[in-house]
Amino acid sequence: MQNPNFNFTILSKDRTSAARAGILHTPHGDVPTPIFMPVGTLANVKTLSPADLSDAHAHIVLGNTYHLRQHPGVDIVSEAGGLSKFMGWAGPTLTDSGGFQVFSLSNTRKVTEEGVEFRSVYDGSLVNFTPETVLGFEQAIGADMIVALDECPPFPAEYNDVERAVELTARWADRFMKSWRQSNSERDSYQAAFLVVQGGVYSDLRKRSVEQMATLDPPGFCIGGVSVGEPQEEMIKAASICCDVLPDEKPRHLLGVGTPHDILAGIEAGVDMFDCVMPTRNGRNCQVFTSQGVVNLRNSRWSRDQNSLDEQCTCYTCRTFSLSYLHHLAVTGEILGMRLLSLHNITFYLSLVKAARCAILSSNYNSWRRKIELDWETGT
Amino acid sequence: MQNPNFNFTILSKDRTSAARAGILHTPHGDVPTPIFMPVGTLANVKTLSPADLSDAHAHIVLGNTYHLRQHPGVDIVSEAGGLSKFMGWAGPTLTDSGGFQVFSLSNTRKVTEEGVEFRSVYDGSLVNFTPETVLGFEQAIGADMIVALDECPPFPAEYNDVERAVELTARWADRFMKSWRQSNSERDSYQAAFLVVQGGVYSDLRKRSVEQMATLDPPGFCIGGVSVGEPQEEMIKAASICCDVLPDEKPRHLLGVGTPHDILAGIEAGVDMFDCVMPTRNGRNCQVFTSQGVVNLRNSRWSRDQNSLDEQCTCYTCRTFSLSYLHHLAVTGEILGMRLLSLHNITFYLSLVKAARCAILSSNYNSWRRKIELDWETGT
Repeated sequence: MQNPNFNFTILSKDRTSAARAGILHTPHGDVPTPIFMPVGTLANVKTLSPADLSDAHAHIVLGNTYHLRQHPGVDIVSEAGGLSKFMGWAGPTLTDSGGFQVFSLSNTRKVTEEGVEFRSVYDGSLVNFTPETVLGFEQAIGADMIVALDECPPFPAEYNDVERAVELTARWADRFMKSWRQSNSERDSYQAAFLVVQGGVYSDLRKRSVEQMATLDPPGFCIGGVSVGEPQEEMIKAASICCDVLPDEKPRHLLGVGTPHDILAGIEAGVDMFDCVMPTRNGRNCQVFTSQGVVNLRNSRWSRDQNSLDEQCTCYTCRTFSLSYLHHLAVTGEILGMRLLSLHNITFYLSLVKAARCAILSSNYNSWRRKIELDWETGT
Repeated sequence: MQNPNFNFTILSKDRTSAARAGILHTPHGDVPTPIFMPVGTLANVKTLSPADLSDAHAHIVLGNTYHLRQHPGVDIVSEAGGLSKFMGWAGPTLTDSGGFQVFSLSNTRKVTEEGVEFRSVYDGSLVNFTPETVLGFEQAIGADMIVALDECPPFPAEYNDVERAVELTARWADRFMKSWRQSNSERDSYQAAFLVVQGGVYSDLRKRSVEQMATLDPPGFCIGGVSVGEPQEEMIKAASICCDVLPDEKPRHLLGVGTPHDILAGIEAGVDMFDCVMPTRNGRNCQVFTSQGVVNLRNSRWSRDQNSLDEQCTCYTCRTFSLSYLHHLAVTGEILGMRLLSLHNITFYLSLVKAARCAILSSNYNSWRRKIELDWETGT
């Protein structure tokens, strides 16, 4: 029997690739897949309002447990009624475990069987993350989907180190699921647990990790240990190996990925969900993604150009302003520029996954992908 | 006969003060007065989009000739079809002369009969502002209302220095009007010239300056040489002296003013138009104006407060977010916080002048003002 609070329906599979189109049913609403999730690290997608996110056709927003635990603190999010209510976003949310930040931000950390101890980047205070404490933080934050604590090795990493991380992540996942199963039923609102597959660039470890996680039968899976510096082909290979052996009927989230090319390759490999800071971070740095390729708004070639940024885009930025004006905001460092370009980039990413979904539903994903990527390369 | 392109209609005068309510008819639309004009120094009101300005019920936006001359350059604004089109704002605009910036930003400047020579704060280049070159810049920028070059003495300043500035400003105004009368008819769209009254805190100089400017019969007047560090009572006294002798039927703009209290006092003195960076600058610094007084969002007293910022406000910020969330954005320095608080402050200023206008139309301005100022003092 399907869970009435959370389930995943595959509507169509592409005949030319492993891509699939589906719907994720969550307590805060339905999400079409494949989907891109804007990153709202500190309970806001940088520079953008919830109304902007709706205008950009965002369906779900990601929050970060590591950061929210410190600012504003999980109690304050909980008192507000959870992440969605706190940030004024009516749709679904997902929190990652903060594990990636523990392993990427904190220089001093001690990994034990119990968990990981580290110093906060905010105030240097000593923090303990265990599968159980992280679950507690995520329950207080109250997102629709929550991710288990994992150990994320860097790239490159030795086989033995990655194997150790795979095994530890499996034991942590088991503990996370036990606590989750005990406590989830007592909550007013359901939260779907996602377990993280590790294994780096080692195919056998990826497969082993998938098997370990699948045994625990979670509502969803994340593919972790990517976007840590490995070449794109390694990342897509890892995603592909995982997707090949992951249970078909469960959603798959490729953590922290990526460029528009990465996302199209991930979809082809069978990934359903993506998140990345790239559209907002690059937007704040005046680099935008368009149907004709990447554009740097600081470039003086745009100073007198009266055309819109992207004629194929329907976002507020493209409907309202000229390249000349956006260039002016970019070179003067005006906040409005960061905001308008972030809005465009988020809209671009959401439009991209929407178009990918249409192509899957028409079962011509690969030919659609070749065409759109050709436009990016030959456009500007 | 009234100018069909630009005229000012007084609808009602308050019986308890010198306040007046009117309508300013401009080529880009009508503006109810008294009005507050958000400052869009570099062709944008910092952090806010034109759609935000419309939501805040802004009617007119101010641009700055000193800054626009450098970024993006007046030719680029001109090529875009003028300031309104360049910045995506459909309503009326006004440019100040940049004189205030010459006298406040540039340390090295040389004032001569011809004009003022100074070094740009942007690149140190030598720039000449004369009544005629400033007119040229403002014609290229293409706002509906343009302000003549004046000499703005600091506060405090000796009588003789202020007198010299009054006389020079009068001769510059005469030259500005001559050039304007010669060239304005050749333009596709009409621009209304505003002359600036100087005189500092010296009543006789203020009156003399008004007489000099009134003789030149411009479409509108600015009261300048205020907001330069003088006490509030001196500023209001200067505005009041000017309004008493300015031609009744012409609009009056009090340059660079001010706090909500200043604006209410200015309206009482008979001022029709105000501009100030305060609502956006303070918004970026997390200080907001509310119906219950000034609030600093960084204060930890708001960290768990689920109420909205201002229950009497209908702006997007107040409709959507809690004080707790706004406090979180404030202490983490998120751009979205600067933006939401700027939007609220601009909405507050626009709502304030709208309410003032209603009170004038009901001829009970002074009792309305006493009540609203009491709320500010006793509220929080």
